[in-house]
Amino acid sequence: MAVQRLVVVGGDAAGMSAASRARRRRGPGELEITAFERGRFTSYSACGIPYWAGGVVDGPDALIARTPEEHRDRGIDVRMRTEVTGLDLEKQRVLARDLESGEERWHGFDHLVLATGARPVRPPLEGIDAPGVHGVQTLEDGRALVDALNGGAAGRRAVVVGAGYIGVEMAEALVLRGYAVTVVERSSQPMATLDPDMGGLVRDAMTAMGIDVVTDTEVTAVRTGPDGTARAVATDAGEFPADVVVLGLGVRPETTLAREADLPLGDSGGLLTDRSMRVRGHENVWAGGDCAEVLDLVSGRTRHIALGTHANKHGQVIGTNVTGGRATFPGVVGTAVSKVCDLEIARTGLLESQAREEGLRYVTATIESTSRAGYYPGARPMTVKMLAEHGTGRLLGVQIVGREGAAKRVDVAAVALTAGMTVDQMTSLDLGYAPPFSPVWDPVLVAARRAAAEVASAS
Amino acid sequence: MAVQRLVVVGGDAAGMSAASRARRRRGPGELEITAFERGRFTSYSACGIPYWAGGVVDGPDALIARTPEEHRDRGIDVRMRTEVTGLDLEKQRVLARDLESGEERWHGFDHLVLATGARPVRPPLEGIDAPGVHGVQTLEDGRALVDALNGGAAGRRAVVVGAGYIGVEMAEALVLRGYAVTVVERSSQPMATLDPDMGGLVRDAMTAMGIDVVTDTEVTAVRTGPDGTARAVATDAGEFPADVVVLGLGVRPETTLAREADLPLGDSGGLLTDRSMRVRGHENVWAGGDCAEVLDLVSGRTRHIALGTHANKHGQVIGTNVTGGRATFPGVVGTAVSKVCDLEIARTGLLESQAREEGLRYVTATIESTSRAGYYPGARPMTVKMLAEHGTGRLLGVQIVGREGAAKRVDVAAVALTAGMTVDQMTSLDLGYAPPFSPVWDPVLVAARRAAAEVASAS
Repeated sequence: MAVQRLVVVGGDAAGMSAASRARRRRGPGELEITAFERGRFTSYSACGIPYWAGGVVDGPDALIARTPEEHRDRGIDVRMRTEVTGLDLEKQRVLARDLESGEERWHGFDHLVLATGARPVRPPLEGIDAPGVHGVQTLEDGRALVDALNGGAAGRRAVVVGAGYIGVEMAEALVLRGYAVTVVERSSQPMATLDPDMGGLVRDAMTAMGIDVVTDTEVTAVRTGPDGTARAVATDAGEFPADVVVLGLGVRPETTLAREADLPLGDSGGLLTDRSMRVRGHENVWAGGDCAEVLDLVSGRTRHIALGTHANKHGQVIGTNVTGGRATFPGVVGTAVSKVCDLEIARTGLLESQAREEGLRYVTATIESTSRAGYYPGARPMTVKMLAEHGTGRLLGVQIVGREGAAKRVDVAAVALTAGMTVDQMTSLDLGYAPPFSPVWDPVLVAARRAAAEVASAS
Repeated sequence: MAVQRLVVVGGDAAGMSAASRARRRRGPGELEITAFERGRFTSYSACGIPYWAGGVVDGPDALIARTPEEHRDRGIDVRMRTEVTGLDLEKQRVLARDLESGEERWHGFDHLVLATGARPVRPPLEGIDAPGVHGVQTLEDGRALVDALNGGAAGRRAVVVGAGYIGVEMAEALVLRGYAVTVVERSSQPMATLDPDMGGLVRDAMTAMGIDVVTDTEVTAVRTGPDGTARAVATDAGEFPADVVVLGLGVRPETTLAREADLPLGDSGGLLTDRSMRVRGHENVWAGGDCAEVLDLVSGRTRHIALGTHANKHGQVIGTNVTGGRATFPGVVGTAVSKVCDLEIARTGLLESQAREEGLRYVTATIESTSRAGYYPGARPMTVKMLAEHGTGRLLGVQIVGREGAAKRVDVAAVALTAGMTVDQMTSLDLGYAPPFSPVWDPVLVAARRAAAEVASAS
C-alpha cells in the first residue's frame, strides 16, 4: 500500500493534535504528515494571552505546548510561515505560499484537515489599525501588547472594547498592570453569554473592582494623537481617553478557504461536520477547532464556540479517524468558565433567551450559597441560577457567578446536561462533602432543589 | 381529621431536617412534631469538629446550624437530654427518659422517624476510657478535646488511632496545634477507602508533613500515668508516648432501639429502608442518617456510610413523605472527600477490591495532571485513578489524591457514575476550561482517555 499523505492546514490546537494523534497511530512509513502554519508558532495557548498580558504568567514560551522543532522530531513536517491560499478538492491538493519567499506550490493529500482557526472581529472603524490598538488572538499580538504595557508610563488609562470572555479577562490583566480600565460594550451587560440578571452581578463586581463598565454603547472610532497612535476611543456616548486600546470583540471562524472551495458552512460561518469531524459530504476532508461549528446537545443546533478544549478534542478524534480508527465528538453543552480578578463566572446549557428561541417552556431558580461550609475559613459566596424545562423538569442550563471555588462547580451541571438529567434527579446527586470543600448541600444541589420545587409548583 | 403526631428520635441532621421539612409542609394545627435528643445540641456539624480542634474554626456555636430554641420557634417540640429507651411498634409509642430527672413517659406517634445516628467504635481495651483519650463524635467530645489541647504544654505528642477520614483530619488538627503526631492504623495503609496505590500516595504526603504513619499495627492498650491519665498507646509494634490520644476508628450505626424492636437491619447493622426512607415492612416508621444503610448504586448493595450530606438528604425526603408528599433517595455512589493539611483526597464508586468482590472484570488507568494550566500560577499536581468495566467500558470508580483543586473534581465522576456513563463517553464531556481553572484537558478527562484506551486494548 502506498504511503498516505495527510495535510493539515493550521498549526495550532486542533491541527497539531490531529497530526500528533495520527502520528502516534501510524509511523512515517505508512503516513506522511505535512502541516502548514502561516504564523511563527505551533500548538500555543491563545487563552493564556490575557494572563501573559497581566504579568501573571511568563510568555510566550510558557504558552507554547509544542514547538515546530518538537513536532518535527515526532515526524511531522511542519511548514512555518506558509499560508494555504488555495484548495482543489477535485485534484486533492492545496496551494501553499511561503510567506518569506513568496513561492507557491501545490501539495497533494489523501486526507485533509482544516484547522484554520478563527479571526478576531475588527470592525472597519477609523483608527482601528492605529498603533496602540491591540488584538489578543496570536502570540504576536500578545508580544506587541506586552511590549506596549511594559513601556507604559504612570497614570495610564486603558479602554477594552467588548465585555465578553476576552474583554473581561483583558480588563483583569490591565487592572493587574495598574491601568485605570474602561470596558465599552455594545449590549446592555457584560458577559452576554449570561442572562441579564447574572450579567448584572458581573457588572456590579467589576465596578466594585474599580473597572468602569460602559454598556449600551457603540464604539465609533479610535482617535489618534499627532504621532498617529491611539489616544481615545470615540463612542456614541462620548470619548474615553486611552493610552492603550484592546479589542475583545470575539472571533469568527476563519473559513475563507473553505468558502472558496464550496465546503458546507453553518449559520455562524463555521465548517459543518458530522460527529466524526468529517466535513459533511466530503469523505476525506476533516475540520476541527475554531473554524468548525459544534453541535449543541441541549438545543440540537450547531453553534460556533471557540475554545481550546474543544479544539483539542476535535484533533484527537480526527487523528484517530484519518488513521482508520473510530472516534466521535458528540457535541457540547455550552460550558464556559472565566474570571475577572477574584470573580468567577461560569455557564453551561441554555440561557433564558436561548430556551425561548428553542420554543421551550422553562422555570428558573436562583440561589445564593458558599463555596465551603459557612463556618469554614475561605467560604466565599456564589449565586447559582438554574433553568429547567417546564413539566419534564429536564435541566436546561446553569449559570454561576461567585468567588473562589464557584466556576468549576458548573462541571456537575455539564455532566448532568449531557446525561439528560432532571433537576429532581440532581437533588440526590452524591457530590463530595466535607467542610473545607462544600456546604452540606453543595450550591448546585441547593439550586436543583429550588428548581425542582419550581417545576413541581408550575405543573 | 385529627392532628397527626410525628415523633423524631435524634436531634441532629437527619432527624431535624425531617422535622423542619415536615413543619414547612404542615402547620401545627395539622401536625404535632416532637423530637427527642439525648445530648445538649441539635443540628450540629460533627464533620466540623476536626477543624474546631485544629483551631481553624471557632466552636461550638459555629458548628450549630440550628439550636433547640430555633427549632422550638418553628413549632417543633424539642426535648433535650431526653433519651428514647423503648419502642412499642404495636401501640405506636416510644418510651422517653428525661436524663436529668430520670422520669420516663410513653409518647404516642402516627409517624416515627428514627435518626439515632452512629456511635464511634471504641474497642474494649485497657485504659481506653482514661482521661486524655478523646472521641470526636459529639460537640461534648469536641469541647473536651479542645480544652485538653488548649491546656497542653510544649513538646507535645499525640497519637491518633485509626487512619480513616476522622483519623487523617484529626492528624491535621493536631499538626496545626503544634503536636508531634503519630497515626496508628491496623491495616496496611492510611485511607482504606482508597486502593493501596492511592493510599500509598497519602502515606507519602503525610510522612512528608512530619506525621508518623504506623500501619499494620494493632493497638493493644492505652497506658496511663500515676495520675490515671493516658501517657502512651501500646501496640503490637511497641509503645508510642502520647500527651493526648484521639480515637478515629470510624462509627457504627446506633440501632440498639431498632434491634430491640426487631426492625430490619443490614449487614453493617444499619436500618434498611426503601427509597422513600421508610423502614422496610413498616408503613409509618422512617429512618435516615447515620443509623441507616444506603443503597450503593454502583454495586447494588446496601452499605453504611456516615455522612452529613446523606443525612440531610434523608431528612428532606422523610419530611416530605411523612406529610403525604412523594420524594425518594435513590442511593449513593460512594463519594467522599477529605484533606490532610494541603493534601486533598477523594473517591467515588468502587475500589479495585470492591469491584472484585462484585465479580466485575475491570481495567484501571492512573494519570498525573494539574489543577490549572501547567503554566498558570498555583497549578498543583494531582493523581487520578479510574476504574472501568472490562468490555463495556462503564465507569466503575475514581480516586483522586492531590493538592488544592483536586478533591472536588470527583464530582464529575460521581455524576457520570449516577448516569451510568462509559469512560469513552466521558472523554468528550464539556467541562469548564480556562487556564486558571483547568488544563485544556481536565485531569478527569485525561484519566477517562487513558481508561478508554485500556478498555479498547483489553477487549
